[in-house]
Amino acid sequence: MNGTTRTGTGAEAPVQRKRAPTLLAGLAANPVARRMLPILEWLPAYKREDLMSDFTAGTVVAIMLIPQGMAYALLAGLPPQMGLYASILPLIVYALFGTSRSLGVGPVAIVSLMVASTLVPLAPTQSAEYVGYALVLSLMSGLMLLALGFARAGFLTNFMSHPVIAGFTTAAALIIAFSQFKYLLGLELARTHLIPKILWEAFQKRDLIHPLTVLIAAGSLAVLFARGRIASFIRDRAWLDAFWSDIFGKSMPLFVVIATTALAWWFDLAAQGVKIVGEIPQGLPSVTMPPLDLGTVEKLAVGAFLIAFVGFLETVSVARTLASKRRQKIDPDQELMAMGVSNIAAAFTGGYPVAGSFSRSVVNFSSGAKTQLAAILTALIIALALVFFTPALYHLPKAVLAAIIVMAVASLVDFSPIHHMWRYMKLDAVSFISTFAAVLILGVEEGILAGIVLSIAFFLWRTSRPNLVQLGRLDNSQLFRDARFHKVTTYEKVLTLRVDMSLYFANAAYLEDYVLRYVADHPDVEHFVLVCSSVNMIDASALETIESLHSRLRDAGVVMHLAAVKSTILRRLKAVDFIDKLEPGRLFGSAHEALVVLTGVDPTVHAPKASRGEHTGETLAAAP
Amino acid sequence: MNGTTRTGTGAEAPVQRKRAPTLLAGLAANPVARRMLPILEWLPAYKREDLMSDFTAGTVVAIMLIPQGMAYALLAGLPPQMGLYASILPLIVYALFGTSRSLGVGPVAIVSLMVASTLVPLAPTQSAEYVGYALVLSLMSGLMLLALGFARAGFLTNFMSHPVIAGFTTAAALIIAFSQFKYLLGLELARTHLIPKILWEAFQKRDLIHPLTVLIAAGSLAVLFARGRIASFIRDRAWLDAFWSDIFGKSMPLFVVIATTALAWWFDLAAQGVKIVGEIPQGLPSVTMPPLDLGTVEKLAVGAFLIAFVGFLETVSVARTLASKRRQKIDPDQELMAMGVSNIAAAFTGGYPVAGSFSRSVVNFSSGAKTQLAAILTALIIALALVFFTPALYHLPKAVLAAIIVMAVASLVDFSPIHHMWRYMKLDAVSFISTFAAVLILGVEEGILAGIVLSIAFFLWRTSRPNLVQLGRLDNSQLFRDARFHKVTTYEKVLTLRVDMSLYFANAAYLEDYVLRYVADHPDVEHFVLVCSSVNMIDASALETIESLHSRLRDAGVVMHLAAVKSTILRRLKAVDFIDKLEPGRLFGSAHEALVVLTGVDPTVHAPKASRGEHTGETLAAAP
Repeated sequence: MNGTTRTGTGAEAPVQRKRAPTLLAGLAANPVARRMLPILEWLPAYKREDLMSDFTAGTVVAIMLIPQGMAYALLAGLPPQMGLYASILPLIVYALFGTSRSLGVGPVAIVSLMVASTLVPLAPTQSAEYVGYALVLSLMSGLMLLALGFARAGFLTNFMSHPVIAGFTTAAALIIAFSQFKYLLGLELARTHLIPKILWEAFQKRDLIHPLTVLIAAGSLAVLFARGRIASFIRDRAWLDAFWSDIFGKSMPLFVVIATTALAWWFDLAAQGVKIVGEIPQGLPSVTMPPLDLGTVEKLAVGAFLIAFVGFLETVSVARTLASKRRQKIDPDQELMAMGVSNIAAAFTGGYPVAGSFSRSVVNFSSGAKTQLAAILTALIIALALVFFTPALYHLPKAVLAAIIVMAVASLVDFSPIHHMWRYMKLDAVSFISTFAAVLILGVEEGILAGIVLSIAFFLWRTSRPNLVQLGRLDNSQLFRDARFHKVTTYEKVLTLRVDMSLYFANAAYLEDYVLRYVADHPDVEHFVLVCSSVNMIDASALETIESLHSRLRDAGVVMHLAAVKSTILRRLKAVDFIDKLEPGRLFGSAHEALVVLTGVDPTVHAPKASRGEHTGETLAAAP
Repeated sequence: MNGTTRTGTGAEAPVQRKRAPTLLAGLAANPVARRMLPILEWLPAYKREDLMSDFTAGTVVAIMLIPQGMAYALLAGLPPQMGLYASILPLIVYALFGTSRSLGVGPVAIVSLMVASTLVPLAPTQSAEYVGYALVLSLMSGLMLLALGFARAGFLTNFMSHPVIAGFTTAAALIIAFSQFKYLLGLELARTHLIPKILWEAFQKRDLIHPLTVLIAAGSLAVLFARGRIASFIRDRAWLDAFWSDIFGKSMPLFVVIATTALAWWFDLAAQGVKIVGEIPQGLPSVTMPPLDLGTVEKLAVGAFLIAFVGFLETVSVARTLASKRRQKIDPDQELMAMGVSNIAAAFTGGYPVAGSFSRSVVNFSSGAKTQLAAILTALIIALALVFFTPALYHLPKAVLAAIIVMAVASLVDFSPIHHMWRYMKLDAVSFISTFAAVLILGVEEGILAGIVLSIAFFLWRTSRPNLVQLGRLDNSQLFRDARFHKVTTYEKVLTLRVDMSLYFANAAYLEDYVLRYVADHPDVEHFVLVCSSVNMIDASALETIESLHSRLRDAGVVMHLAAVKSTILRRLKAVDFIDKLEPGRLFGSAHEALVVLTGVDPTVHAPKASRGEHTGETLAAAP
């Protein structure tokens, strides 16, 4: 607080690491470079004892990422190797630029779905054209994220409310799960986001369901579903200790992949109609040039923006959660730039849009990752796998990848917030349900846009009808309270109104209408005191409305006063000489001060002198 | 206030008017009918002494309306008689349904411009197709207004902020004025909203400027411009008394019309190239059926909505101003219905979209109109003019109508708000300028949409970065004040933060980031007290963020507490058992109570016991 208590690994780093290369040391001493390249914070101060935990975590994440990467690429309508390509350079680039120490970057389920929903109308999946579009999409998302980062516009993502995010995520997870139906059943089904359509088509083609594929899918799902129990079983028997049995559980997807691939190869299941992944090009991705042209850019703009937006949302929320567990900070604007550069890296190395994965980040963190060195290691393992092991994946059944996807998204389907929101604030539950329904009915992009528009509309609607509280004097004290809930004294000559909301263009007229109607209905009112203790802002429209209310009230023989105005607002009001314009109205420090001056009531006595009428809250509540 | 002081002409009406027809009396006694047909309020209670003022006002408005109606119809790209047709039935209908006693309904300048900007891309002006579209536009606007009225959605119009309205009006007035250039100069110019293009084309065609037309236009403009001075001149000479000289001034447009028409007829100016109005069909409009079909409806939907929206805005703002001058009420939702029915009436009687005119309403009011009987009279005079006097208007030069339009909109051009807004709140000045520029560059409809989106975006942006105030204890009192502006005591162990804004999805993350960053930078902090005295609402997203902040802080070893929560919010928090979840954090009545409990400080002594550090506001202001 006083500047001397500040601790931190970065601040003292250049002193600690005297043997660091001069360029690195020079960069690390430069505060701008340190902000733009957070790796300069942790790498020079890297502790040797962290190496083992980073190594373990990096390996565990790589084991998860190999099947997930391929599966998500298929979900996105892309060849499986693109998921692996997207898991090399983007991870390394994020390690340089990102502020989170444990974020697991790479292909993620919802972004993959959004890629498909953007590109499927434009080209046949898996085609060269489709792949080209995916590269452009990744480049555009990356550039957008970078631009938002430079504009320090990370706050934009806050405009998606939690009900919208929750409704969207649940609906998207359902769409993803049902999109895997065709692989799980071994059927040819049309790509659509409409779940009943998928179910209907599957029902119509029920005779074509491939029993062997269903068996493999069911077996894989069962093993994946039981992986936690298998891990505890092994731990309880003391075959492995807690740490290794946990890692065993996390590696289950890879074991399923290995086992089913071996089975498929041994029994040549492909010949019996089981769909397999087939040939995956061996070796590292070559540098690709996204086929940019103006027409493509125009077609993909909305999709790229939404992908950037949603991907970033997931990234930031995971990064925030993990950082706070170790009392570290993340910088959302720097995260925007890091994700931007990662996506650009994906575009030029044959990948597709990436984001911070919730599941892999959590695994990374819980497996002990201390720094982004773990992610760099993950990337190296994926690269090695691409160089040496792709031929081994030839016989991997697609149904297994589908099972991995279904298990990964199952945890995202969560309707529990509805009940909670309904009890807390009904409008938020409506936001959840509307977004959920819009995504399922209209599609992913349209649904999320509808959700954003809706949550903003609901917010505006909510603020457009502020709580107007008629105040009365409590027990002849200095205190003023809501006349509906307290037995207070009100004065016919004076209308004392507290606005429980900032005044702005959308609600100022509501206040004006209320006051004018009240004054028209109550000819005895001579003074109107606007109590601003809860008003945090008055914009120019509201100020104009207050001025017009003031002059309209004057026409009607009522004097308007202000009370308890916050100093930040007061400074603005004085800048435009509003206090002079308020004449003959006055500015009071409090509602009580206003009452004393306007009615001549003596604040120390116990019976109000000047009051011409006395009402309990009940009477007032009936007034319009 | 107590229900017995309520005065009103309507409540006792059925008793007063014993000779009223039974149907009328029955209707007037029905409260629903009285709300839907406000004429039942005033007509049965009509006072004979008001008849003379209503008669005068109705006549003066009719004299204004004859040239204005024709001029605005031409501005809208329609034959002049449609402006007169729109000035009969819509006025009578409004008199039945409207809640304003002195509103002057009929063609208005900005709505006419919007009609043109909607229809010009669709059909050649003055063509039968164009006229048909105008009827449909009127019908659609009317139905939309009616629907909004039934939905009681009058508040929607509040979403246009004053800077947007001011910027839009000024830009629209400029576009209208320059659209008359061709008539004033006697040139053929292309219709466009781009003023530089008009000027450039006029410059290129400068050799074709018609001197005689310019002379007539300049003369008309001079007389209209000087009408106030002419009226004072006559009054000062005592040729007429104040009342009649005022009416003389208001009738100046009609005098100019009569004089120039006579000149044009006498010297046959049309033969010398002066454009004249030409034949106007004699007689009342026949009942027209708007040529409705789905394609047309789709093409006109946005335009109809914006016309309804803008027309209603003008209507309500005039009606509010005039009603408050006599301490009368207007009901915005009933106004929506009344304007809806008026527009539908216009559609079926050969008119085009109408609204409440600012200039004519003010004239109506100041000429003494007491009730809508004045408007009914205006309508009858217009009808008489159509039956008897249209042949006399054959030789009226179009340049004169253009001059009348230019004078009418000149007062709408007003840049003065910019300066005021700039001093008060810069963002509002930016709204004004952006809307102004958008209208001039993009066009009327696009500009107004851009303005609405912008003002909502600015509002959201403003609320997305709430004022976060670190509080400190003032002079060992119970009072807590902003540590930046007051010399207060703060406590290293306790971060006391007041949020000066309702918490909702767009700003909750900002609070969370701030607190987490602060806690990461200040390892001594053990307690965080969120002071909610200025928080009027916490939506579900913000609640979730608070919950996650709470658990993230707990991970970091900091306990979160709430203080001074409003009872409306408290009730919601209790409904979802939030107070239990807050454990070990607590709910305090005030910041002071929190401090006493958390630091063990004794509120009555003058030296803080438990404080480990003391800071002035200056030190704290430097903290991030």
